[in-house]
Amino acid sequence: MQNEHRLLDSTDKRPWPKLRGHVQACLRVAKSLLMKTGEDWWFLFALGMLMALISFTMDFTSAKLQKVHRMLFDELQDHRLLQWVAWVSFPMALTAFSTGFAQSVSPASGGSGIPELKTILGGVVLEEYLSIRTFAAKVIGLTCTLSAGSTVFLGKVGPFVHISSMLATFLGRVMTRVAGTYENAARQYEMLVAAAAVGVGCCFGAPVSGVLFSVEVMSSHFAVRDYWRGFFAASCGALMFRILSVLNREQETIVALFKTQFLVDFPFDLPELVFFALLGVICGGVSCAYLYCQRTFFAYVRKNKVTAKLLASDKALYSTAVAFLLAVITFPPGIGQFMAARLTMKELLTSMFDRDTWFVLSANRSANLAAPVNQSSLWLEWANPDSGVYATLCVFIVMKFWMLILATTMPLPAGYFMPVFVYGAALGRLVGEVLAYIFPNGIKSEGTVVYITPGGYALAGAAAFSGAVTHTVSTAMLVFEVTGQIAHILPVLVAVLVANAIAQKFQPSFYDGTIMIKKLPYLPKLRGAGRTGAYGILVEQFMNTKISYLTRDSSERHVKKILKSAPLTAYPVVDADNSMILVGAVRRPELVHWMRNRAADGELESPKTLDGCDIEPITFQLSPKTSLYQAHKLFELLGLQFIYVTSAGRLVGAVTLAELRRGMEDLISGKIVPALMSAV
Amino acid sequence: MQNEHRLLDSTDKRPWPKLRGHVQACLRVAKSLLMKTGEDWWFLFALGMLMALISFTMDFTSAKLQKVHRMLFDELQDHRLLQWVAWVSFPMALTAFSTGFAQSVSPASGGSGIPELKTILGGVVLEEYLSIRTFAAKVIGLTCTLSAGSTVFLGKVGPFVHISSMLATFLGRVMTRVAGTYENAARQYEMLVAAAAVGVGCCFGAPVSGVLFSVEVMSSHFAVRDYWRGFFAASCGALMFRILSVLNREQETIVALFKTQFLVDFPFDLPELVFFALLGVICGGVSCAYLYCQRTFFAYVRKNKVTAKLLASDKALYSTAVAFLLAVITFPPGIGQFMAARLTMKELLTSMFDRDTWFVLSANRSANLAAPVNQSSLWLEWANPDSGVYATLCVFIVMKFWMLILATTMPLPAGYFMPVFVYGAALGRLVGEVLAYIFPNGIKSEGTVVYITPGGYALAGAAAFSGAVTHTVSTAMLVFEVTGQIAHILPVLVAVLVANAIAQKFQPSFYDGTIMIKKLPYLPKLRGAGRTGAYGILVEQFMNTKISYLTRDSSERHVKKILKSAPLTAYPVVDADNSMILVGAVRRPELVHWMRNRAADGELESPKTLDGCDIEPITFQLSPKTSLYQAHKLFELLGLQFIYVTSAGRLVGAVTLAELRRGMEDLISGKIVPALMSAV
Repeated sequence: MQNEHRLLDSTDKRPWPKLRGHVQACLRVAKSLLMKTGEDWWFLFALGMLMALISFTMDFTSAKLQKVHRMLFDELQDHRLLQWVAWVSFPMALTAFSTGFAQSVSPASGGSGIPELKTILGGVVLEEYLSIRTFAAKVIGLTCTLSAGSTVFLGKVGPFVHISSMLATFLGRVMTRVAGTYENAARQYEMLVAAAAVGVGCCFGAPVSGVLFSVEVMSSHFAVRDYWRGFFAASCGALMFRILSVLNREQETIVALFKTQFLVDFPFDLPELVFFALLGVICGGVSCAYLYCQRTFFAYVRKNKVTAKLLASDKALYSTAVAFLLAVITFPPGIGQFMAARLTMKELLTSMFDRDTWFVLSANRSANLAAPVNQSSLWLEWANPDSGVYATLCVFIVMKFWMLILATTMPLPAGYFMPVFVYGAALGRLVGEVLAYIFPNGIKSEGTVVYITPGGYALAGAAAFSGAVTHTVSTAMLVFEVTGQIAHILPVLVAVLVANAIAQKFQPSFYDGTIMIKKLPYLPKLRGAGRTGAYGILVEQFMNTKISYLTRDSSERHVKKILKSAPLTAYPVVDADNSMILVGAVRRPELVHWMRNRAADGELESPKTLDGCDIEPITFQLSPKTSLYQAHKLFELLGLQFIYVTSAGRLVGAVTLAELRRGMEDLISGKIVPALMSAV
Repeated sequence: MQNEHRLLDSTDKRPWPKLRGHVQACLRVAKSLLMKTGEDWWFLFALGMLMALISFTMDFTSAKLQKVHRMLFDELQDHRLLQWVAWVSFPMALTAFSTGFAQSVSPASGGSGIPELKTILGGVVLEEYLSIRTFAAKVIGLTCTLSAGSTVFLGKVGPFVHISSMLATFLGRVMTRVAGTYENAARQYEMLVAAAAVGVGCCFGAPVSGVLFSVEVMSSHFAVRDYWRGFFAASCGALMFRILSVLNREQETIVALFKTQFLVDFPFDLPELVFFALLGVICGGVSCAYLYCQRTFFAYVRKNKVTAKLLASDKALYSTAVAFLLAVITFPPGIGQFMAARLTMKELLTSMFDRDTWFVLSANRSANLAAPVNQSSLWLEWANPDSGVYATLCVFIVMKFWMLILATTMPLPAGYFMPVFVYGAALGRLVGEVLAYIFPNGIKSEGTVVYITPGGYALAGAAAFSGAVTHTVSTAMLVFEVTGQIAHILPVLVAVLVANAIAQKFQPSFYDGTIMIKKLPYLPKLRGAGRTGAYGILVEQFMNTKISYLTRDSSERHVKKILKSAPLTAYPVVDADNSMILVGAVRRPELVHWMRNRAADGELESPKTLDGCDIEPITFQLSPKTSLYQAHKLFELLGLQFIYVTSAGRLVGAVTLAELRRGMEDLISGKIVPALMSAV
């Protein structure tokens, strides 16, 4: 053998065979070492890098396109009509293309994608939402949407979470083939959770809040090890994303996306905490109004004959019409001048996080609307000579409220987090500016004079409003990661918690609302009175007792009848009709397959057994005395769709998501009363 | 009735009966409103406030006592012997009292408490660890430990988590009695998780990392709603804690605990990321050595005849001896001068997070060891004229390594996080100072000159080392919350992730190590090769098939025999010996109670049924075909201690924590081989 090997070696004419042999051996050792350290980590690393590249490329492209748009607009200063055409046609064309392309390639690519991902993580299979076609459609569509800029006012967070999940699924499949590792549901779940974190992390270069936000939005519970994976992947992504911007000469080194210049030594005075709490109340209230209006309008658009028809057949036309309306309103020489319409979304945020008080600054200088946007004094856009900063901010807040709601109905790939974030910053800025007006010399804290920083309120407003709309508190972290300072952490947390308390009390989150309207299966949260009562409600009070089951010796005819009458995903199999001992369950496809095989074998009406049919064992089951609370927890933790109820081994009922939901509704409406007042 | 009421009313001689009536009515409405908004939130609010008060009082007391100690030391400058006595006796007395008091009131109050809490959250009942006696012992003991200062070098994080949990348990009991709400296991779990967050949050005034750290340390999974509760409670606590320090005139407004003066515009240069990663490697390596030595030494002290005897009978004596040794070594005019022994732990941290390079500063000025500590130039303590900053840092790192390990063996209430945190900061500072020496003009990034900030490395070192020792990544957040800036987030995350990867690969965490040595029941994590294989191992390969069970018609003798032969917490009950259909389970205490009652009733050897005995239904069960991975997940998620295995309703085995652990060990050692290579 060895000789043969040498012979083969000597036929190799490439130089230094010995050295190469050594190198190859080293490489093999390295490869096995890498595999030993866990290919999962390499997978996460690759995912982070790729997503950072996509995020950076997308930002780069859309920034260039927006620059072209602005240049065109500035150049045509003297031709008002041409200027108008340039301003309006640009976003119209982009949204039309975005909608048309995305919808024709894959209808699943529309919208944010987070509601569907949430459903997928809840255990429902929605294949098309994780396909590579949808990935392509979403990436290209989203680039166009973002390029349309602040006219349509849409972001990229949600779609990025979706894109990241699709990429993770694809990478997972590739890895399964190449490395020979095997795929399974649990592993896929872990990867999706990490992917969601990468998505958010790459948008803002914010790894910590990326992980936290994705956890809060996507799931109702999570494992600490998933959280580590998320941290690792999001850090890789965020690091790469920031390094790319350094390499691209945008920045000298890695700094925050929206760097601020706040006073770190004395960021705020103690009494200001009250105002921050007040800002939380305002943000909470406005978010409730926003969520209610958005949900109602979204449902209305789907019901109204004209729009429903448009959305069914001519989606691109609908988007174009909406974009036209939005562009007309934001035309800078028109109403747009009263809402800083020339600024991009990034510039809007940068201007609002400004340390100085606009009111004071604008006393000396006001905007020249004919001149191009002044990058070093973005606040000038708000200081309209005809109205002043307060009116401009108010117009912005009032107009963007309905414009935002209108924009969310467009069926193109787009995120709805960033607009909400900017809107919240405007709310906060307004409060901050008003306070700076009321207390021009700051709130007297003995001795020192501390001026109010409206930028700090903008921070808190952005975090509180976006947190309230999405029902998350990690937005508090996000504002610090994107601004690169953390001096306001306690007041921002106060505002976010207050706003969240109000929003969670009165409205479902943005994503849950969409899930409801789209009628995706979901499990509502247990809260308030429902939560307290849930300990005392027993499964037997709301379970479905009329279940279709098979017995071990079910006749073919019986199986056929059941397949027709009850379209379940799985059928329970019991020992015999009289004993009812639960033996296992058969999935519907397996049952259909088995029936076909038997028919082909010509065994019809012969032995009456399910022999040869794959009966899966029952892993989880409930007892009739389990509480609603425990059942809910189990569904939530394990991502179940149904569970059988047995009593002493006998099948007595079944609980699906529908029963559970009904049980919760009946409890809240008082239709069923807690059976016990003190459960374990 | 109404007349009677009026009569009663008119006898009331207090003024303004009508007004008071209105006020009372208002109060009643307010109370019902408060109750409606969820008494849980009020509970969390109260918990946060109380913990902040405790934390502040403890800090205040220990700061005063340390001040006394330092004054005494400074005053006795001319009497070397008296000075030595003062220096040594102070910590000896305090640790002796702390150990003696805590151990005599409640032995459960020793140590950090986190390992035990982790076990409790895992589903094991350890009553004494949540009692109010232990609370008192721990609060007073910990105050003394902290007052002993940097001589014994112990912290308060762990005990604070424990104290907070005890307070939450107590408050929960009070609420149950007063408000009439009912207590249950699920609710208690939620409260404990929130309490842990409050504990960490109150130590540092850091709510976000408080929540994250407690989650990572305490549990292997968590629900998002628990995380919100944690956020709320920790924010209340941290806010109150910071406000108290403002009210106490320590600070003018709410700022970070260890405020830094880093350059925010250009915190670090891109190539420095490599050094941060290197620092991560160093911290990871040192943490492995630390964890290994600590575990070995801790086990040795418990085994060695002399120390074991001391620890069994004279705990206070042992503590005093250790404190004596530590105090002798840190005596400032002796070896202490080479390890900045005069600084308190807070001052140590403040000095290490200093922006300026000690090496540069010390070129002009060095310490005067006779003068009192200079509060505005703490770094002077490191600039010993005989050795210089590098040698001092090295001595500190080498000496504190074993001193820290020695200190952890003392049986008094004390935290082990803060010392590790300071130690890591020293490691980082050393790397930073060395880099500043090698690159005196910074690493050339085209054009601008950026000096290296050793403080940034100290930050990263603190986060990486403490993260590696505790197996957490949220320490990265902690350093930013305590320093009030976030410019170094990406390099710190890199260091923390690298250090964690190394530590998690080779050593169990500090808390897991303690759990192992204390032989508390625990569930190891699935990782590496074990994790990949776990999908293919089936429950039937490692379950316990020799189970003791009862039948419905078990004779009294049989029950007695089983009670004696198998000391289980619960016994499965089957239908009959031949059918083996699992009906339910009887807890041991219930069975014993039932036996006694029957004996009292004189029904011995009469009907052979378990009638009247409370047979609990089985909520969860496994199938023999469930994978090890799924079983592990279920144990982890639901905090189970055992689970029965049934096949078609028949009881075929049981899995307890012990079986699961053995299964995992056998898998890793190769004793059992995956049965399938592709599981769902």
